[in-house]
Amino acid sequence: MTAKIERYLAENQVETPCLVVDLDVIAENYRTMNRLLPLARIFYAVKANPEPAVVAMLNGLGSSFDTASRGEIDLVLGQGASPDRVSFGNTIKKQRDIAYAYEKGVRLFAFDSEAELEKLAESAPGAKVFCRILMECGGAEWPLSRKFGCAPEMATDLLVRARDLGLEPYGISFHVGSQQTDIGQWDVAIGRAAAMFSAIAKANIDLKMVNIGGGFPAKYRANIRPVEAYCDGVMSAMQKHFGNAIPEIIIEPGRSMVGDAGVIQTEVVLISKKDYEEDKRWVYLDIGKFGGLAETMDEAIKYDIATDRDGGETAPVILAGPTCDSADILYEKTEYRLPVELKVGDKVKILATGAYTTSYSAVNFNGFAPLKAVCI
Amino acid sequence: MTAKIERYLAENQVETPCLVVDLDVIAENYRTMNRLLPLARIFYAVKANPEPAVVAMLNGLGSSFDTASRGEIDLVLGQGASPDRVSFGNTIKKQRDIAYAYEKGVRLFAFDSEAELEKLAESAPGAKVFCRILMECGGAEWPLSRKFGCAPEMATDLLVRARDLGLEPYGISFHVGSQQTDIGQWDVAIGRAAAMFSAIAKANIDLKMVNIGGGFPAKYRANIRPVEAYCDGVMSAMQKHFGNAIPEIIIEPGRSMVGDAGVIQTEVVLISKKDYEEDKRWVYLDIGKFGGLAETMDEAIKYDIATDRDGGETAPVILAGPTCDSADILYEKTEYRLPVELKVGDKVKILATGAYTTSYSAVNFNGFAPLKAVCI
Repeated sequence: MTAKIERYLAENQVETPCLVVDLDVIAENYRTMNRLLPLARIFYAVKANPEPAVVAMLNGLGSSFDTASRGEIDLVLGQGASPDRVSFGNTIKKQRDIAYAYEKGVRLFAFDSEAELEKLAESAPGAKVFCRILMECGGAEWPLSRKFGCAPEMATDLLVRARDLGLEPYGISFHVGSQQTDIGQWDVAIGRAAAMFSAIAKANIDLKMVNIGGGFPAKYRANIRPVEAYCDGVMSAMQKHFGNAIPEIIIEPGRSMVGDAGVIQTEVVLISKKDYEEDKRWVYLDIGKFGGLAETMDEAIKYDIATDRDGGETAPVILAGPTCDSADILYEKTEYRLPVELKVGDKVKILATGAYTTSYSAVNFNGFAPLKAVCI
Repeated sequence: MTAKIERYLAENQVETPCLVVDLDVIAENYRTMNRLLPLARIFYAVKANPEPAVVAMLNGLGSSFDTASRGEIDLVLGQGASPDRVSFGNTIKKQRDIAYAYEKGVRLFAFDSEAELEKLAESAPGAKVFCRILMECGGAEWPLSRKFGCAPEMATDLLVRARDLGLEPYGISFHVGSQQTDIGQWDVAIGRAAAMFSAIAKANIDLKMVNIGGGFPAKYRANIRPVEAYCDGVMSAMQKHFGNAIPEIIIEPGRSMVGDAGVIQTEVVLISKKDYEEDKRWVYLDIGKFGGLAETMDEAIKYDIATDRDGGETAPVILAGPTCDSADILYEKTEYRLPVELKVGDKVKILATGAYTTSYSAVNFNGFAPLKAVCI
């Protein structure tokens, strides 16, 4: 937690639950990545935290933006981003949303299927398109699936078809999985991309760009290697697989850009036991799985937790949210310990919650208002 | 799907995704349950569908309301419910929300722990309180947990303590799990409640009420027995365990009251394959796990799906939502088949989605607007 957030929470009685975002941390993360990857263009993955103040600040620093929907395109353009700094990175787009983006000046689009290519040819003629290839990498803490991407052979055919349809076959993208701690996965993926550059060159297509997606981890409970290690890994892999002909690089950080910039202030609503023999306390907070902590699904993301009583004796707890939903449990299998002295009404801070929290929050589940955010 | 919804969707170009709720179905469900359980008071579980029009209509029919939060209390009072028809049924309440409810006239509260009882004694003096006991029943399709309730021995002690604190120890509640298809589970639970009545009578406390919670199933893909069977099962169990001294009965239907009253109209955004060998198509809809279909978590609730091309040849599909989140898949392990002729842009109806959809919807995930609802 930053001194700025600590001071803010000390000086302001925020109504809980509330996410406090330190914009300085994001700015520093942006500058660090820019310095470590001078050859890459940074497209901030807006979905990680779409607070207008975050977008405006990154826009001021020169960031580009990876957007998932018409709503996100409106957001970034509204905060001053020029359309040449916007990528419509979702491979699943309505035809009318492609047309809308194109009309607004967006010229860079992702795809991974023939049907999407046909929509793009019709509604975004001449646009630069990149094909996402399928990755099945281990090591990511947020579940991977086959939802995005296609097999390299299909991608090759589709990029040829893109040219035939009057689009500009621009590059290859992949994603090694969110909260990916295994640096080696980028090497595998970049190697696959390089092989595709060669395969496609045989069809006289000169691809220009590799989009290495997101996936760099944020620091939760477990230690991670510093961002330098991931950036080094990426650049080494680029040199290894592309030699002196390194193409344009796009990176789409989300979690690693904003995750550690936020702290959720929450309150203990209840502490109880279920029977006299039970050894664990149940601690119920005023935020849960449906109020912004959706990434605790299957206990995937394990947030660090701080209380004002830290330092004394601790005991194991089960952590749960405030709704009447029996699935609204944060951590039951994962061991969490909290101070024995913890009391109902105490404030609890959930750390590194700047990414994938507010926008995941349910609109009104159980009558609870969605998670608020303050950017400082 | 009702004729009224069918007509509405035929006559109106609704912007998808959209939930259409047929209020007549809910009214009919209410009247049926009222007729089948004349001894029970129906407290509609507002969290299942908090649309003001639903609450207003049920209020007009004389329903009472089970509420989970201050927000839901404001909602039902705002729609005209008198406070004597409101139960604050969440066992996890902030002290100030208890005080708020009490000030508004609410006098019936749930609890399952000593800490909660102390809050109630302080902020809701003299109120009727009921203790939720722990149930570990099988057969529910939505995951059960130990989040709510306490062991019967603890419940007995707590009800005695409630009296000592100046509260009115009023009854016992339980919940056998949502979408519970096993009628026998109510027999087990009611038997446990009856045993507690006897145990507590020894402390000269005359409990007056059994709250049998919710859990009656809605009809999704699998067939279920009619509501008559569940009501019969409940009343038989009451007679078996309480004989001629049947106490007040409260029932808190949510899913079984509104589930079959709603249809989500959605649109096919993309149909694709991942590689040439794949035998299943991926069908991407404009609604997913974060846009209102949260109950597809772990493929728990299996909705019925209808298209305008039903009747012809079908083939297996994987169904997914429109966001960039790899976890946003509706059904991958569960076999779903859709028409071979299905096309991008086609409308798809997700049936029996009147419960636990709109209010679960994420506020703005990936820049997509939350699920809208129309009550007709």
